[in-house]
Amino acid sequence: MDLLGYDMDCVKSEKFVVFDEKKEHLTMIVDDHTVYRGDSGELSGFPSCADGFPYLEESMRREFHYSDIIRRSQVNLAKEVAKTGSGCRFNCGMSFGVHVGAPFDSIKGLRVMVGTADAVFAPNLENLEPLPEDFDPTAVIKEPVPEAVNNDPFAVNGHAKVEDNEREIVLGRNVHTMCLEVTEPDADDDVTGEREAYMASILARYRKSLLERTKHHLGYPYNLDFEYGALAQLQHFSINNLGDPFIESNYGVHSRQFEVGVLDWFARLWELEKNEYWGYITNCGTEGNLHGILVGREVFPDGILYASSDTHYSVFKAARMYKMECEKVGTLLSGEIDCEDFRTKLLLHKGKPAIINVNIGTTVKGAVDDLDLVIQTLEETGFRHDQFYIHCDGALFGLMMPFVKRAPKVTFKKPIGSVSVSGHKFVGCPMPCGVQITRLDHINALSRNVEYLASRDATIMGSRNGHAPIFLWYTLNRKGYRGFQREVKKCLKNAHYLKDCLKAAGIGAMLNELSSTVVFERPHDEEFVRKWQLACQGNIAHVIVMPNITVEKLDGFLNELIEKRAMWYNNEKIQPPCVASDIGQQNCLCAMHK
Amino acid sequence: MDLLGYDMDCVKSEKFVVFDEKKEHLTMIVDDHTVYRGDSGELSGFPSCADGFPYLEESMRREFHYSDIIRRSQVNLAKEVAKTGSGCRFNCGMSFGVHVGAPFDSIKGLRVMVGTADAVFAPNLENLEPLPEDFDPTAVIKEPVPEAVNNDPFAVNGHAKVEDNEREIVLGRNVHTMCLEVTEPDADDDVTGEREAYMASILARYRKSLLERTKHHLGYPYNLDFEYGALAQLQHFSINNLGDPFIESNYGVHSRQFEVGVLDWFARLWELEKNEYWGYITNCGTEGNLHGILVGREVFPDGILYASSDTHYSVFKAARMYKMECEKVGTLLSGEIDCEDFRTKLLLHKGKPAIINVNIGTTVKGAVDDLDLVIQTLEETGFRHDQFYIHCDGALFGLMMPFVKRAPKVTFKKPIGSVSVSGHKFVGCPMPCGVQITRLDHINALSRNVEYLASRDATIMGSRNGHAPIFLWYTLNRKGYRGFQREVKKCLKNAHYLKDCLKAAGIGAMLNELSSTVVFERPHDEEFVRKWQLACQGNIAHVIVMPNITVEKLDGFLNELIEKRAMWYNNEKIQPPCVASDIGQQNCLCAMHK
Repeated sequence: MDLLGYDMDCVKSEKFVVFDEKKEHLTMIVDDHTVYRGDSGELSGFPSCADGFPYLEESMRREFHYSDIIRRSQVNLAKEVAKTGSGCRFNCGMSFGVHVGAPFDSIKGLRVMVGTADAVFAPNLENLEPLPEDFDPTAVIKEPVPEAVNNDPFAVNGHAKVEDNEREIVLGRNVHTMCLEVTEPDADDDVTGEREAYMASILARYRKSLLERTKHHLGYPYNLDFEYGALAQLQHFSINNLGDPFIESNYGVHSRQFEVGVLDWFARLWELEKNEYWGYITNCGTEGNLHGILVGREVFPDGILYASSDTHYSVFKAARMYKMECEKVGTLLSGEIDCEDFRTKLLLHKGKPAIINVNIGTTVKGAVDDLDLVIQTLEETGFRHDQFYIHCDGALFGLMMPFVKRAPKVTFKKPIGSVSVSGHKFVGCPMPCGVQITRLDHINALSRNVEYLASRDATIMGSRNGHAPIFLWYTLNRKGYRGFQREVKKCLKNAHYLKDCLKAAGIGAMLNELSSTVVFERPHDEEFVRKWQLACQGNIAHVIVMPNITVEKLDGFLNELIEKRAMWYNNEKIQPPCVASDIGQQNCLCAMHK
Repeated sequence: MDLLGYDMDCVKSEKFVVFDEKKEHLTMIVDDHTVYRGDSGELSGFPSCADGFPYLEESMRREFHYSDIIRRSQVNLAKEVAKTGSGCRFNCGMSFGVHVGAPFDSIKGLRVMVGTADAVFAPNLENLEPLPEDFDPTAVIKEPVPEAVNNDPFAVNGHAKVEDNEREIVLGRNVHTMCLEVTEPDADDDVTGEREAYMASILARYRKSLLERTKHHLGYPYNLDFEYGALAQLQHFSINNLGDPFIESNYGVHSRQFEVGVLDWFARLWELEKNEYWGYITNCGTEGNLHGILVGREVFPDGILYASSDTHYSVFKAARMYKMECEKVGTLLSGEIDCEDFRTKLLLHKGKPAIINVNIGTTVKGAVDDLDLVIQTLEETGFRHDQFYIHCDGALFGLMMPFVKRAPKVTFKKPIGSVSVSGHKFVGCPMPCGVQITRLDHINALSRNVEYLASRDATIMGSRNGHAPIFLWYTLNRKGYRGFQREVKKCLKNAHYLKDCLKAAGIGAMLNELSSTVVFERPHDEEFVRKWQLACQGNIAHVIVMPNITVEKLDGFLNELIEKRAMWYNNEKIQPPCVASDIGQQNCLCAMHK
């Protein structure tokens, strides 16, 4: 039996036919859900056979469960192959498919090819390592190996396994997390390929759900518009930037040369000389905040932490972790820190140094604290520059600000101690990451004073993802300042468009001048919120306009919102929520304020 | 002009030919260093043209610099295409190649295909967004855009840029980190493809250096033997498991279903019921330690932290971060915690609760602390079970232990509070990650008491890499308990082989019974240490035998070490170091002890 496979592109291929040499057993997979199986007579009699099977005729379709059929046919094929002794192994559910575009007679001549996998493995059966003779599974596995996952965890109404513990959350829903169980492979899985087929089918469906979710995504500040195909080759390596970016460890598989390039770029953006900064690429914005505030605390061990109430929760988490006294400062309606309240709070603790978290874009309203006014307030209340430490949490807007006119400039020429920014937000990166830049002076001081903290490793994490710096390096190189400038402009334009359209449709909305975060009344229906992945808090929701959010996408969202709203509020009983206390009377369009 | 490309496998393809319709300008890239360029007459006259060009004949080779030629040919091709107005964009240096296996006449009929990239983009030139009219680069870029990187940062003797700050380090060398600068793209880079070509050439060389470094890697506990081709498709998505694994946020592009599956597997391994555990997938072993010790401190705010002197530095870092009193406990020669000293230290602080870090495999010697003896010591000194909290740092061996006979069992049936393990070590994963499992009781208590810490998010990091859980899930599913059992066996066998060979060659060495970390005299030559990426401390070095370390690899290492040693110690002046104080007289083979 010949194994013929043609996998043009694992990511894209959806139509496959599988058959044996005699064309007796045939399986055609038209898409993830429609599978056709029959003998060659049926299949060759199929009308559009010659011209590419765009679709099976309705009458000839039969519904199968995708993973089952893939699994079953792989097992059958593998058993056939095993009989002939030629040996085979399937890389994924797709790797034995034949693209249906080819005419039947030419298929036999095609070479077996695999798109994303390295090669088609062909271990002979005799080479398969047997289970060790003294292997006693009962010594390890206490319970019997659980059943395979039978349910479809991606189905909305599926019977997915749920967890019981409920907890209050703020930005999100309290949804029971579904679980894809890890199951013990059967002893013959290596031979049959059943296991790989099972996993491939799960991954294929997962990918489909990701595509769908990526399409309807408005509420989180992640730029999903990236293309890193050129970097796929690096996934084969365990790249780890152990410890300090500027001290090379003996572990050779790292990406420090990319990391330092990226750090240099950001240090220049925030105007700190190369020989005056220290920094590293973090796992996320939170790690940046944890690091910045830790440096502040080490500089001022008895300092008081000041942060506005709209500050990201990681800052308050840091206070708790580091046992710091923390003073929460009020905010203006825009979400900016209220410097009058800040002044009052500072005067309460005049004797102690101040550690201040300044938000360059708050989580909910995208508000930018006025850095200059914060510094002025400190000075006016008698704090000398050696009595305070400012950490700028630039998670989202830290990279957008430099391109916005009239924005208060984030620069180390001002008396600030550290700046952090997220890499997976405006830049766009497949995994969370961030950049942390601080003054080398602080780290050198730590290095002298704190044996454990800095002499070996002044980062928070020891092992650091070496792929993230390459993604960042790649994007910075490709886009450059000009590219980011263009994208910021586009985001701000589209955010204004969205805000204007919302208001025109009678929906209360606010957009801070320096922001692309559009805050508006929380949609009535949770299903709608979930579909568009809006982040909500109290009566408000927001859309963060990232480079991947086009006008077309916004129009789709707006049209659906307006349509749904007409249904939600079609009688007098239910009214749109009042958002005056969140975004001000002038922005509210509820029954009372419009 | 037709652009014909056939990219079978970006990772593997090394032989390409590029040509235009008239076959006038041809470029053949044979491998990373050999490039042939000429006109079609030359090329078609090439003898092995018809049967696949295994290699160019010596006389016909001409040496070019790979990146230059790729760059130049891409630029030229792009300019040609631009003239015809058909528009093109290169995904990477390879994407316009034609695999040389095909006979010339058939090439024109081939469709343009790309292996790992989604598609070949063909934006028309008119669609290219022009620079914004009001763009003022001087408002953003303070210094002139720096020159492109001209040096080869991968060359050992290159002129790579170096940083100045030096700092003492322990496990590693104080090497100046090289830097790949980020440069501002030229205005026409989008059109010419020059930028992408430049980056592709850097990445190609980087990949080559990674291949080389991965091959000679012995000193770090990373299993580099993995194959995740089936997961490459997921790199297109920004997968982020925001916050708690068991509370779904509205951000839909997550992988919680995989994460919870992996957590369930580990909870079962360590014998904690599904409804009794809480955990998450961390960014690395350090995050696990930071979390475990934080939970310990929250349970016992005035607890004393006890950790042996061979403990990973992240534990002492945690003590500093969390402002905890810390008592360093001595170790035995094996590297295990000295429970006699532990007893003495415990008695010093009888009034205060104890938080203990237990090592399941120390960093340097791979020693496993005797968990049972630690608990017994606590009980004997009068500590009730509600007066201590044990965190098990299982970074490396946490996953190997269950498969080793006579190993002290790590299980939540014993009075322990948390266990952490690294995911990129024994399991193998392209990026650092780890698993943290603790008792749900502790997290629920935190959740009630600490608003910031747990009610929203009991993890240390807010945003978490959503790819790592899928890698882990994939490997656990593929290998299962049986697979890990087999690999542990192989590692222990090979570690014994290495230790025996070292001793047979007169080299002092030690291997702990429950370990695959072979400790031996530090090689005299730093170049040798760097080549094999050995981790060193004082007079000792170690090799950690992971599943990717074969006997062949060990033989290569041994032969080179023995050969080099004969040179280093060929006269009486230089002697091999005495390692008796590190690994005991019985293991030392220095002049005095042999």
